[in-house]
Amino acid sequence: MKIDDKFFMKLAINEAWKYQFLTYPNPSVGCVVVKGDSEILSIEAHKEVGKAHAEVNALKEAFLKYHPNDVLKTLSNSFEIHEYLIKHHNDFFNDCTIYVTLEPCNHVGKTPSCANLLKQLKPKRVVIAHKDMNNQAKDGQKTLEEASIECEVGCMKKEAYDLLYPFLKWNSGTFIFYKMAQTLNGTIDGGKISSNQTLAYVHTLRDRIDLLVIGGNTVRTDRPTLDARYVVGTAPEVLIYSQKTIFDTQIPLFKIPNRKVTISDDLFKLLDYKFVMIEGGYTLLEKLKEKIDFLILLVTPKIRNGLNAQNIIDMDFEIIHENFIGKEKIIYLRRKVK
Amino acid sequence: MKIDDKFFMKLAINEAWKYQFLTYPNPSVGCVVVKGDSEILSIEAHKEVGKAHAEVNALKEAFLKYHPNDVLKTLSNSFEIHEYLIKHHNDFFNDCTIYVTLEPCNHVGKTPSCANLLKQLKPKRVVIAHKDMNNQAKDGQKTLEEASIECEVGCMKKEAYDLLYPFLKWNSGTFIFYKMAQTLNGTIDGGKISSNQTLAYVHTLRDRIDLLVIGGNTVRTDRPTLDARYVVGTAPEVLIYSQKTIFDTQIPLFKIPNRKVTISDDLFKLLDYKFVMIEGGYTLLEKLKEKIDFLILLVTPKIRNGLNAQNIIDMDFEIIHENFIGKEKIIYLRRKVK
Repeated sequence: MKIDDKFFMKLAINEAWKYQFLTYPNPSVGCVVVKGDSEILSIEAHKEVGKAHAEVNALKEAFLKYHPNDVLKTLSNSFEIHEYLIKHHNDFFNDCTIYVTLEPCNHVGKTPSCANLLKQLKPKRVVIAHKDMNNQAKDGQKTLEEASIECEVGCMKKEAYDLLYPFLKWNSGTFIFYKMAQTLNGTIDGGKISSNQTLAYVHTLRDRIDLLVIGGNTVRTDRPTLDARYVVGTAPEVLIYSQKTIFDTQIPLFKIPNRKVTISDDLFKLLDYKFVMIEGGYTLLEKLKEKIDFLILLVTPKIRNGLNAQNIIDMDFEIIHENFIGKEKIIYLRRKVK
Repeated sequence: MKIDDKFFMKLAINEAWKYQFLTYPNPSVGCVVVKGDSEILSIEAHKEVGKAHAEVNALKEAFLKYHPNDVLKTLSNSFEIHEYLIKHHNDFFNDCTIYVTLEPCNHVGKTPSCANLLKQLKPKRVVIAHKDMNNQAKDGQKTLEEASIECEVGCMKKEAYDLLYPFLKWNSGTFIFYKMAQTLNGTIDGGKISSNQTLAYVHTLRDRIDLLVIGGNTVRTDRPTLDARYVVGTAPEVLIYSQKTIFDTQIPLFKIPNRKVTISDDLFKLLDYKFVMIEGGYTLLEKLKEKIDFLILLVTPKIRNGLNAQNIIDMDFEIIHENFIGKEKIIYLRRKVK
């Protein structure tokens, strides 16, 4: 296997995927710091809005690798880490290459500018997978090149675009994903399918999204709560997709304080939100199949006798990433537009 | 993310999985060479029986990383590489850690002993994920420790055991895997499911196995050839699992020269072979569900209307690895014994 720029960038991309969706409204970004030719110092990602960017996490861990008991260890605020590194780097990064999946940000927002930090730390080279198209944040590369830091753009661009895709969509309109849990052979009925760990992940997603869409029949049959209690998160706003507007108000989802629930069969409403999750089976997928960006498949490693062949759907996807959630699998699929 | 022994061992394990089954009758083994604390020099695997072991490939690539135009580049024979490295290493490996998924072999077979090679190169440390239980090859660790090379055994042992599992089975009896191609929603009918790249992989497997088992109804309906023509490989011996012994002899599989075909409903025959692949759908799986070690699922990223709910199977698995074959997915599942 070749140990080259692509190898290191892939490590950064894989690390970023661990936090896909969880950084909303920020993009998911990964960063790897390599000293000399191939000494890996750190592999980090941006984890949550308001928290340190991927570059900051990676530069901090890289510095600590050589200075394990440095006071830097105690800092977690981005402004403090920036300030500390600028003051104490002592040319440590001069022989380092920084691999980052997205062009370092060029502006001061909730956290300071990564391009400015890198400019002062003067690494040997910055390899960027994908340009930042955001008007506020862009031109990090320009800032670096003006400081005579060698930049390379486009390494693993396709994979970085896949990673960035949800951000590009919610940043310019609406990103809609369909979440479905199933067995290996595609059965989705018959009680609990996912493990508690996977359910906790779903609750984390519910905590992040702007809107949860669910079918009226599922609400009537399953009587769900649709909150984020497993992670002590915020219950999302709910749109029940239904023509009939009458529901038993004793269904738990109606009982969550301060949560808005709309009952409607108008799917245009989805476009009023930036980050939308749909929970359902194949019937609802059939209705929404032209609307979704991603299908997120949670697969439990079991074969079960069950119903799943009623669907009359033909849909093509591209697998853009897959990962484990404990002993189960999560597959990220982008809908192919025919 | 922590850059530690586990991180490097995982790279070795993942590299080895790329060649799972293809090394038969040898085990699938991976090796990573790290200089100093975290400078990755090489990530390699054993690729085919008779060819260089993982350690030899990794040591060669590591040496070439610092000596890119060395004559070593031109060598591919294991004995020559061993001899060359022993003669020219010039203490290059003294500050290196070698991560290997299986204890280095201690005997001279088709290739020379890896433990002996390492003993002479004197790396700082050898980290071994899993002991070698093979009577001929074992005790590599002992050889290394007698040469005062620090050894650590058991790093990622569970993952290394999963990787080694097919070898342990075929080495002591029979390893049986069930290969199935399906869509995301589990449909398996309706013409061609897999891409040409995935089909070529299946043909490579057919070239390696001792016996291919297929159901009588599939033979009658699909009239398959069951050879390895996509990779110009050897067509495997075939067992048609059927109570009725009369078949149309014009079916292509019967026309392959020098290939043995047996028609039988006696599944005990499978135990006369070491490495057995079963190709079929859920009906045959139901019959064989207590016999198989692995389910190898080839998944195409499509949802299709089709039949797949006739099965009445309840089976539990552990996902032990997953990978891409081009744009499709391969999932390695080990059957859970209840």
